[in-house]
This record gives sequence, C-alpha cells and structure tokens, in this order.
Amino acid sequence: MPDVTLARIEKDLLALSRFGYNETDKGVYRQGFTDVDMEARRWMMQQFEAAGMTARMDGAGNVIGRYGPDDKPAVLIGSHLDSVPAGGIFDGTLGVVAGLECVRTIIENDIALAHPIEVIGTSEEEGRFGGMLGAQALTGSITPDWLESAHDPSGLKLKDAMAKQGLNHLDVLHAYKDPDDIKAFLELHVEQGPVLEAAHKTIGVVEGISGVFKWLVRLIGKADHAGTAPMNMRSDAFLGVAEFAHEIQRIINEEGTERSRLTIGRVELKPGFPHTVPGEVEFTLVGRDLEPEVMKALSNACRRVLSSIARKHRLMFEYEQMSWLEPMPCSSPIVDLVEKHTKQRGYSYMRMPSGAGHDTQFFAGVTDAGLIFVPSVGGVSHAPDELTHWVDIEKGANLLLDCVIELAAA
Amino acid sequence: MPDVTLARIEKDLLALSRFGYNETDKGVYRQGFTDVDMEARRWMMQQFEAAGMTARMDGAGNVIGRYGPDDKPAVLIGSHLDSVPAGGIFDGTLGVVAGLECVRTIIENDIALAHPIEVIGTSEEEGRFGGMLGAQALTGSITPDWLESAHDPSGLKLKDAMAKQGLNHLDVLHAYKDPDDIKAFLELHVEQGPVLEAAHKTIGVVEGISGVFKWLVRLIGKADHAGTAPMNMRSDAFLGVAEFAHEIQRIINEEGTERSRLTIGRVELKPGFPHTVPGEVEFTLVGRDLEPEVMKALSNACRRVLSSIARKHRLMFEYEQMSWLEPMPCSSPIVDLVEKHTKQRGYSYMRMPSGAGHDTQFFAGVTDAGLIFVPSVGGVSHAPDELTHWVDIEKGANLLLDCVIELAAA
Repeated sequence: MPDVTLARIEKDLLALSRFGYNETDKGVYRQGFTDVDMEARRWMMQQFEAAGMTARMDGAGNVIGRYGPDDKPAVLIGSHLDSVPAGGIFDGTLGVVAGLECVRTIIENDIALAHPIEVIGTSEEEGRFGGMLGAQALTGSITPDWLESAHDPSGLKLKDAMAKQGLNHLDVLHAYKDPDDIKAFLELHVEQGPVLEAAHKTIGVVEGISGVFKWLVRLIGKADHAGTAPMNMRSDAFLGVAEFAHEIQRIINEEGTERSRLTIGRVELKPGFPHTVPGEVEFTLVGRDLEPEVMKALSNACRRVLSSIARKHRLMFEYEQMSWLEPMPCSSPIVDLVEKHTKQRGYSYMRMPSGAGHDTQFFAGVTDAGLIFVPSVGGVSHAPDELTHWVDIEKGANLLLDCVIELAAA
Repeated sequence: MPDVTLARIEKDLLALSRFGYNETDKGVYRQGFTDVDMEARRWMMQQFEAAGMTARMDGAGNVIGRYGPDDKPAVLIGSHLDSVPAGGIFDGTLGVVAGLECVRTIIENDIALAHPIEVIGTSEEEGRFGGMLGAQALTGSITPDWLESAHDPSGLKLKDAMAKQGLNHLDVLHAYKDPDDIKAFLELHVEQGPVLEAAHKTIGVVEGISGVFKWLVRLIGKADHAGTAPMNMRSDAFLGVAEFAHEIQRIINEEGTERSRLTIGRVELKPGFPHTVPGEVEFTLVGRDLEPEVMKALSNACRRVLSSIARKHRLMFEYEQMSWLEPMPCSSPIVDLVEKHTKQRGYSYMRMPSGAGHDTQFFAGVTDAGLIFVPSVGGVSHAPDELTHWVDIEKGANLLLDCVIELAAA
C-alpha cells in the first residue's frame, strides 16, 4: 500500500488555519458563511484543481473535488471547513485535507479506480444557524421553511448571511445527492475527547454517533428567608437538583453503559440571593448513549428519580424535552473495513462511540458510512490549544487512504 | 394591668402604609432617606406630639418621642420605619406604632413613671446603604469613613441621599446615645418566618439574634464536552457543590442545633452551557446559629466536607469569608421579664432565636435588650402579602405594655 505525504497535509492544514486566524487569542474564527469561510472554500477548490480534480461549490456552500470515472457511485470523503469561534486548526479541516491527500497519493501511484472519489468540505457543521447545513443538504434533510427561518444567535438570518455571499438559500435544496450515486462515506476527525490519549491508542474505530436528549427541568419550591425558615420547613429547590446530581452515577450504573453520559450543564436559581432559600431551579439535563433502548431507560430513570426527589423535598417537578436525537450507528461493513486496515497497518486502536455530532451521522442514514478518530491531546477541542500530533495525523490519513482504495479501486 | 387599644394601632399602621404605597403591586416602597420615608417620619413625630410626647429627629434620621421624668435613664421602645422595596405594612412599623400606643395607654391610665420612655422610629434598618444606620448610630458603631463611602446598589452615596433630605451625614455621629442614659431596649416585631404559626404560638420570646457567616466558595475542575468526556474522566464542578448540598443536613445533625441554618442561595456555573461539563462553580454559603461555638463547628465542618469532596471530584476548592457576625444574645433579665408577662397574660408562647437581623442586636451590645415576635401568616415578609392577624398584634402590644410598665413605672 502507498503512504500519504504528511508534509503536504501539514502545509494545507496550516494554510487553512490562516483563514479567520485571530492574532490576539490565537483562535480560528471561521464560522459558516462569513467572508473568511467563503475564502477558505475558494482556496480549497483551488487545491482540488491543482491536484487534478474537478472542483465545484454546491448550493449549500459545500465544496466538492471529484476525481475518477463518471459512471459509478462515488466514494465520498468529507468533513467540515467551518469552525466555532476561537476554534482550533484540526477540527473538521483534517478530514478534508486528508481526503485531498488520499486523492493525490492515488494519482501519484497510478491506482486505477472503478469508482470516482469526491472530497467534500462541508458547510456550517458547527451549527451557527442551528443545524449541520452542508451534510443535511447533501443527504436531504433540509426543508424550505427551515431555510426561511434559521438564524444565528445574534438574530441574523441564514438566508441573509447566504445572500451576502452571493448564495440563494433555496439553492440549498439543489445540493441533495441521490443516494444511488453514493457508494460510501468516510470521515477522518480528531476525537475532541480524552479517551484515545488516556488509553494510549492511535486510532478510534467509531461504531456510531451517540443519540442525545436534552431536557429543560424545573423544580419549584418556596423562596424563604434563609435566617427565619428552619431547615425542616423549607422547600429548597436547589437541594432537589443537588440530590438528583448525586444520583446520576447510580442511574448510569443501573440503567446505562460505559458509553452513557448524563450532564447538568446549566443551572439557574431563583431568586438567587445568598440570604434566600432558592424557591426555584431551572437546569438542563443532557443524556447520551449509543443504543436507543439505553437512552429510553436513562430518560425513564431520570424522570422517576426526579419525581421521587421532588416529593421528598416538597417540590413541583416539570420538564420539557427540548430535543431527542436517535443514535446513528456507523455501517458495520465500513467499521469492519476500518478495523481490518488498522490491524494491517499495525496501528493501536479501539472501537468507540462518538459522543459529539459529526457530518457522518447524516450520511449514515443514506449510505455505508464510517468515522475514524485520531487522538486529541488533553481531550481539548473547540479551543485555540487544540492539538493532534502529526504522527497520529499521518497514521489516520494512511488508514483513510487504505479504506478509500479498497472501496474505490478497480 | 391596662390594655392597649387595638383600633388606634390599626389606624396608625394603615396610615403609615400609605407612605410609599404602590397601587400596581400593592407593595410599600419606603426605602431609607427617600422622600416618602422622610414624610412618614415627620408624620410619626406629629403622632408623638399628639399623644403628649416631645418629638425630635436626630442626626441619623431616627424620630424619637419622649415622655416622662427627665433625670433617669430611659426605657427605649423601638423598631424601624423604612421598608424594603415592595415590602409589607407590618415589618418595622408595628414596633413603633405599638410603642406609641403603650405610652398613650400609660398616660390614659395615669401610670406614674420613675423612668422616661422613648419611642424610636429608627432609620435605614433594611440596609439600602449596607448597614442598620439608625440603630448603629444610636449605639455608636458608625464611623466617619463609612459615612463617606456608603452607597446604595445604584451607586448613590448615603451622604448625597441625606443631603437631598436636608441632613448632614456627619450629624449621624451626634445621634449616639450615652448607654448610661438607657435603662433598657424593647422591640416588638413580626416573626418574618413560619415557626410561630406552625407551632400554634402567639408570642415568640426571642433569646437572641443568630450570628451569620457568609462564604463565597469556588470549586474549579475542568470544562469538557458533555458528549466526548466519559463520566469517570470528568472534573465536574457542579457534582462537587451538589454533593456538598447533599451533606448539609448531616453536617447540621452532627455539628449544629435545631437553630442552625446552612443555605446555598446563589450558584453560578461556568461556562453554563447545556452541552459542556461545568468546569467551575461559584456559590454562596450562609450559616447561622445562636451560639458562637456552634457557628465555628459548622464552618469547620463545611470546610472539611468541601475539602474532601473537592479531592474526590478532582476539584480545586477555595473560599472567601465575606462576613462573620457573632450571635447577639438578648439580656436574660429581659427575656425572663417577657416570659413572665406572657405567662401572666396567658398567651401561648415559645422561646426562639431570631434568624433575621433586627435593631435589637445593636442595643443588646450596650444595654438590656429584648425582642418579641408575633406570627407572620405563612412566614411571609418583605412582600406585599405580609400579614399578621390583628388579634396577635393586640396581644403583642399588650405584652410590650406590661414589660414597659414594669421597667419604667414608679
């Protein structure tokens, strides 16, 4: 098997990192449909063409480089080019740059293809406008009404942001790719978590993307003077959420798996004064697992435990399910393929879930899709000090190359 | 023993409630040194004079009605005339109006006095400018530098608010009363808590005002992606405060008394996003008890437990002691006197601490001081729906009268 050339990957990643780089905090600010985001996309198209591919931008802002025969379903390699505010230089870009390097290597080594390869730099994966626009457009889960109403946290509408870049938001619907024209989808991404590093593994063979539910929970008791209200006569809403938080590990032990996550990330007390017993608390509960049944078991247990704690502390319990995204398994043939080539390369690896969302999750709904992780130092991502060692990037790209060759070669 | 005339108390309380009454929320807005506060004080002086007392306003804005012989230390009856924003009509005013009614009743019944009686409507007890200005001025715990720098939450300086009312802030220091001129201090106040109502008692014989400590606590862990960070690799700061809250009752059971209070009233998570493991939490801890040793034991236990929880959850623990106010016991001769007359009147009663602060706590430092509670319906205070039944007010005022007569009569 041929190998990728790390120096070219490094050069492309560093070049991309200049689009939106902030000298003050050293972070990348390349949010979807900003000027720098569009500049990066045009730059990427130039690299596709320089490598001998045809390049185009679709109606959703995805940039697509294509190489190979025209009459067969394509093997897609994709990840995103946009960043969060103050993001790092590997998140997303790695998968696009590595995809390009795979095609360069295939061309250099005169590997004949039975299927074309498309390298896709997807648009707006980080959710500035509330979705994963590029991947959703390609896989057909964007509706016209959503395109009309989507807006960023400042209130700027997606359609206005796109218009400013010369794009018509309704053209997003033209980005849809007929699944019959797709053979498979592969994504190489940094883990954005601490698992691989802690386990001393180079490759994460991702089995699926965890499902997520998000609740907004309210516990309502009674605000009292913290001096005059005896402890046993209070209805202290904070004690309710505190007792629940204390039970979270037990709930996971009893109902979940080692892949389960339950997180209380936002908590607001009312009135929130030092000398007042909190009469009300509102908090978010986010649950994740790779199995739908486990997600249901976790959410049922959370509801039972919250009800019971509310009764005990004389609180009213109410919650709103803000979202419920089903887990999305990666295709087993692709998972097996990735694992096989990892073993052949002799790389250390582990099978694992992805707790974070990725473009792959939309492609997994329409084709054979797979996701490969390489380690994030300290688990850090979405921050200027995001780092993946070049040696790990090289291995990840070589693995991607092997998989692409097996899927696309004649 | 003679009785007070409830109708006059009722009339005065309702009249006072008009100063600062808000038609929209039905609350009283009579914060210290506002126009309506000063109007209420001048009205109160007129009532003192109408009852046959001499009346004056001292340099701190306290209004003082005096009756009786001039050559002996005075028996003081006092409480405050200012209110919190959107307050009720009984808090503070009851003690002033009942004091006036005691003097009226003594005059009507030709009771000869060996000691003069002074009825005091204290100023700025609710802490708009950060203290209990009137009572502190009378008992000598105000300093010139504090007078220069004190300001309300909007930044308005005390000295400017006083100047606007024609008062010179440095005259506050002239309000100091030589303790040799004071025989005793008595205050009748609504409980502002639920204890008397729940215990079906009419009178609370207050043994002392609880001490208070206030901590600002920080637990610092590590912010992580709620999807990618496994439960056992997190340093979740919220789990730290939750576990501590869970231990609060145990801490009180082991180190405190039934009079102890520990309250977490304000909690702020950082970054406070639903999908991020909270890397940091800042919260307030307010502790109260009637015994200095118990306060120390509680605070030591809180420190130990927080340290241990921080270690367990891999958090850094730091705290700042924002304030430590020692408990202030009421004088036992006065407590016994109040209890004796309660029994003689045949009123139901209980001994109890005051968890909230009152003017009494400053007088207890310089003279024999006592505090009498009557029930607050539902424990509500500092709110428009504050209510104490007239029948309970009548009993409280009669008890005050009996105590004053025993202390002041010839």
